[in-house]
Amino acid sequence: MPRGDASAERVCACALDLFSRHGVAGTSLQMIADALGVAKAAVYYRYRTKDDIVRAVLAPAFDAFTTLLDEVELRPVDERAGALVDGLARQAVTHRRLYAVVLGDVSAADLGRRSPDDAAVWLRLRETLAGPAPDDVSRTRAAIFLSGLMGPAVDADVARLDDATLERAVASAGRRILGLPD
Amino acid sequence: MPRGDASAERVCACALDLFSRHGVAGTSLQMIADALGVAKAAVYYRYRTKDDIVRAVLAPAFDAFTTLLDEVELRPVDERAGALVDGLARQAVTHRRLYAVVLGDVSAADLGRRSPDDAAVWLRLRETLAGPAPDDVSRTRAAIFLSGLMGPAVDADVARLDDATLERAVASAGRRILGLPD
Repeated sequence: MPRGDASAERVCACALDLFSRHGVAGTSLQMIADALGVAKAAVYYRYRTKDDIVRAVLAPAFDAFTTLLDEVELRPVDERAGALVDGLARQAVTHRRLYAVVLGDVSAADLGRRSPDDAAVWLRLRETLAGPAPDDVSRTRAAIFLSGLMGPAVDADVARLDDATLERAVASAGRRILGLPD
Repeated sequence: MPRGDASAERVCACALDLFSRHGVAGTSLQMIADALGVAKAAVYYRYRTKDDIVRAVLAPAFDAFTTLLDEVELRPVDERAGALVDGLARQAVTHRRLYAVVLGDVSAADLGRRSPDDAAVWLRLRETLAGPAPDDVSRTRAAIFLSGLMGPAVDADVARLDDATLERAVASAGRRILGLPD
């Protein structure tokens, strides 16, 4: 691909790479333009602000969350949390780097500021994981599992595991936290 | 306290506040100096680089990890993981904001680059949590719990819980993940 191409796809791939190395806060539009070999104006042409880029980078994760939640909600109430754990384990393993950025670098407060829609999806994840009769304890467990999903991405030794092993380990950890059958 | 004071304590408190709002990567020495109302040279006088400040901010967490590990290792081997879970739950709740920075914003790779000592402590935490006969699955569970510890800090609803409730919920989640008795 020639340098100088600032397609949406290329900007997002480049931004994710920079976010995972420098953090969201430590990445500027100028750094993205430099890494792409384009003028800052070419990036501005697609995305007016860094928040717009963050939203675009995170969009595939939040789209996948929404699809998964929609599927899970077709099931009986008492099967939903377990099915969501399994689905999140699969996604976390498949998209390790994106998950490390989504879960590690985007605080709930940031999310609300940047996108009320994304914040609503996040709440829906937590509430579904917390089960049909949520209380403080089950909500805490759900929050721990959601944060814990980034563990495999940030732990170098664990990140070396193959996808199938890691997915099983993440799913069984989630089911254990939430007190669901393995 | 008068503006213009760049004591080690004040620099660290100010840096932690900026780290938790802008991320480690998004915070510059200049921002710390501006927030303290001092010249950048006054910050340089204490800390030559931002990495030095990061190490100083994280030091209380890593000192507490080391103290806890030393205590835990006096116990019989099969009690260590559970005792460590309980101790980490207590620390995570007491130092919520520091934990969100330590666990959320400092990748394992960064840690190794910034401080081999801190990286060794982190590995010791993970290995103790993984138990006396660690394998891929138990190491993954340990990594999930360590990342999950920041959940209470980044989830606004959960962060509102009182310390005792949150500590119990975090400890029981950790024991469940690792397959330990509650």
